[in-house]
Amino acid sequence: MVDRRVDAEALDRADPLAAFRERFVITDDRIYLDGNSLGRLPHATAERLGAMTADWGARLVTGWDDWLDAPRRTGDVLAPVIGAQPGEVLCCDSVTVNLYKLAAAIHRQGPLVTDATDFPTDRYVLQGLATERGVPFSHDPQGAGLIVRSHVDYRTGALADMQPSDTPTIWDLSYSAGAVEIDLSDIEYAVGCTYKYLNGGPGAPAFLYVRKDRQAALRSPIWGWFAQRDQFDMDRAYDPQPGIARFLAGTPPILGLAAVEEGARITTEAGLPAIAAKARAQTQLIIDHAPCEVLTPDVRGSHVALRHPDARALTAALIERDVILDFRAPDVIRFGVAPLYTRYVDVWDAVERLTNLLAQR
Amino acid sequence: MVDRRVDAEALDRADPLAAFRERFVITDDRIYLDGNSLGRLPHATAERLGAMTADWGARLVTGWDDWLDAPRRTGDVLAPVIGAQPGEVLCCDSVTVNLYKLAAAIHRQGPLVTDATDFPTDRYVLQGLATERGVPFSHDPQGAGLIVRSHVDYRTGALADMQPSDTPTIWDLSYSAGAVEIDLSDIEYAVGCTYKYLNGGPGAPAFLYVRKDRQAALRSPIWGWFAQRDQFDMDRAYDPQPGIARFLAGTPPILGLAAVEEGARITTEAGLPAIAAKARAQTQLIIDHAPCEVLTPDVRGSHVALRHPDARALTAALIERDVILDFRAPDVIRFGVAPLYTRYVDVWDAVERLTNLLAQR
Repeated sequence: MVDRRVDAEALDRADPLAAFRERFVITDDRIYLDGNSLGRLPHATAERLGAMTADWGARLVTGWDDWLDAPRRTGDVLAPVIGAQPGEVLCCDSVTVNLYKLAAAIHRQGPLVTDATDFPTDRYVLQGLATERGVPFSHDPQGAGLIVRSHVDYRTGALADMQPSDTPTIWDLSYSAGAVEIDLSDIEYAVGCTYKYLNGGPGAPAFLYVRKDRQAALRSPIWGWFAQRDQFDMDRAYDPQPGIARFLAGTPPILGLAAVEEGARITTEAGLPAIAAKARAQTQLIIDHAPCEVLTPDVRGSHVALRHPDARALTAALIERDVILDFRAPDVIRFGVAPLYTRYVDVWDAVERLTNLLAQR
Repeated sequence: MVDRRVDAEALDRADPLAAFRERFVITDDRIYLDGNSLGRLPHATAERLGAMTADWGARLVTGWDDWLDAPRRTGDVLAPVIGAQPGEVLCCDSVTVNLYKLAAAIHRQGPLVTDATDFPTDRYVLQGLATERGVPFSHDPQGAGLIVRSHVDYRTGALADMQPSDTPTIWDLSYSAGAVEIDLSDIEYAVGCTYKYLNGGPGAPAFLYVRKDRQAALRSPIWGWFAQRDQFDMDRAYDPQPGIARFLAGTPPILGLAAVEEGARITTEAGLPAIAAKARAQTQLIIDHAPCEVLTPDVRGSHVALRHPDARALTAALIERDVILDFRAPDVIRFGVAPLYTRYVDVWDAVERLTNLLAQR
C-alpha cells in the first residue's frame, strides 16, 4: 500500500519500465493522465516522421516499391501487441471505417447488437448498418446476428472477459491494445485504435484483425484498388487478395503508418506483462486514495473512472492545476495511466490535487 | 513552336511560375514527370509536418481544441482550387472510401454506372455497391441510377466536358484537381485525391465535395462519431451535423490534413489559370515532338499518353536514364507535367531521351 508520496517515489525508483519515459517527448511539468485519449509522442516517431517526409521528397513515386505493403507490414509489427499472428492484422483507415467494413462483411442476418455502454462510434456504425439492411439494432445479445463489444469500457474502465462466442462478435480493442495482455487465438474479429496506448499520433491509422481461418470467407463492402490482386493490372474485374489485405480500400497513409510502427515497437520492447502489471498497480493507487466514488471494477484496463456530480467543473479545475485528464458526461473524471511514461508520483500528485480541491469545497 | 532546346530554355526564363520550383524539395537531377501519380514535397510541408509533430508532443490531447475542425478547415482551403464554396468540401479518408460514402448516400435505385475507362477503384467501388444492393453495374449511362465519371482520364489524359446532368453524377477530380481550372457551381457531387497535383504526400487524405443545396438530403452509410452533432454528448442517438461534416466518419488524420493544407495553399497562390496555361503549353510540347503515337486529345489535363507496343520496356529504360514517369498497361507511357515544378527543359529532355531510345532500336 502506498501511503505517502515517498512510497510512490520508491515505486518509481524500482520501476522496471522507468527508463521508457525518456523515450517520449516531454516538454513541461504538467501531469498527463490522458494517454487513454491521445498518447505521447515518442522521440523515435518524431525522427521517423522526419525521415519518412524526406523519403517522400527524395524517392517520390519510386518509394511505393516499399510503401505498397505498409498496411500489412505495420499490422505484423502490431500483431504481437494484441496477441495476433502475422498476416492477421491490417493497419489502415479509422476504427469507424474498419468496424463498418468488418461488420458489413460478417453480418448475414438478424439484429445488430452493441452494449448500451459501447463507445459512440461503435453504436452509430451498427445502427447505420441496421438501418441500411432493415434489421433491428439493439442491446440484447439474445438472437443477435452480430455483436460488437468493447474489451475495456471507455467510461468505467471495466475489462470484459473476452471469450469465444457462437454469435459472430467483433471486439473493439481501442482501450485495451497496448494496455493489457491480449490473446486473440480464440477470437475471430477485432478492431482498434493506435493513438491511445500505442502512441501513433492524432488520427493515426487504426487496425483491423481477422483470424486467418475467417479471412477467405469475408469480403469488404468497400471494393478498393488496394485490396485488388495484381493491383496494377488495371483492366481486370475486382478480385480481392487472398489474405488480410482484402480489407484495404484506398491508398494508405504512409506517414501515419510509419508512426504506428514506431509506437508499436516501443510497446513490444517494453512487453505487455510489464505494462499491464504497472497499469494494475497505478490504477490501484488511484482507487485506494480516490476522494470520491470509484466506478471502475477490480477487473479493469488502464484507466479509472471517478464519479462526482461536479465532475465537469472538477476536471476543468484539475487541468488548471496542471493535471491533464478528461471528463465524460454526465459525471465521470477519467484518470488514465500509460505505464510507458506515467510515474507513480504523477498518479499520487494528481489524486492529491483532486482531494485538495474537494476539501476546499 | 519549340524547335530546339534553347527555345525551351527561353520559355523557362519567361515562365511566370518559374520561382515556384524553389518551393519544393529537389534532391537530385532526375527529371520527374510523375507528379500525376505522386507530387513533390513542398518545403513548407516539411516544416509544417515537423511543427505539427511537435504540436502533438507539446499540446497532447488539448490540441484537439484546434484539430477537431481540421477536415472542414482543410476543405475550405482546398475549395477555391476546385471552384467550390466554403462549407462544400471535406478532407478525410481516401478517394475510395469517400466515393463509397457518397455513392451509397446518393443512390436510390437503378444501375450504377462508370465509364469503362474509369480508374479501377471507381469501378470497383460501384461494382461492390451494385452487388450489395442487387442492382446492375454497367457502363451504359442510359437509365442509370448514379454515374461516376472521371474529369481527366487517368490513362489518356482526356478532359471531359463537366456539365450538369439529370442523372445524379459524381465526378472524380483526382487527375484534374490542381491541374486545370474547375468550376463546380453547376455540379452536385465530386471526390478527388490530394497526393497528385496538390502535393499532399503518399496516401494523404482525399476530398469530398457536395454542393450546399444537396447536403441536407444525404446521409453517409458509415455513421461515425465525427459526423455527430455535439460529438462529446455521447449518450444521444445518432444525429448527424447539418453541413458537409456529416460525411466524416472516424478520427481524422491530423498530420496528413496539415500537409494537404500546405499543398493547397501553394496551388492557390500560383493560381489555376497560370497552372493550366503552363500545363497546356508543356503537354503541347510533348505532343508536338512525340516520337510515337499520341493517345491524348486536344482537350486534356496535365499528362500525355504515348502509345507504343514496347511501352513497358521503354518506361523502364527511361527511368534508367533518369526520367521518372510511369507505364500503364498494356501499352501506355504517361508523361505528367506539374507546372509548379516542371521546367520546359525537363519536358524537352525527356522527349528527346525517348526519341533517342527509339532511334537506337
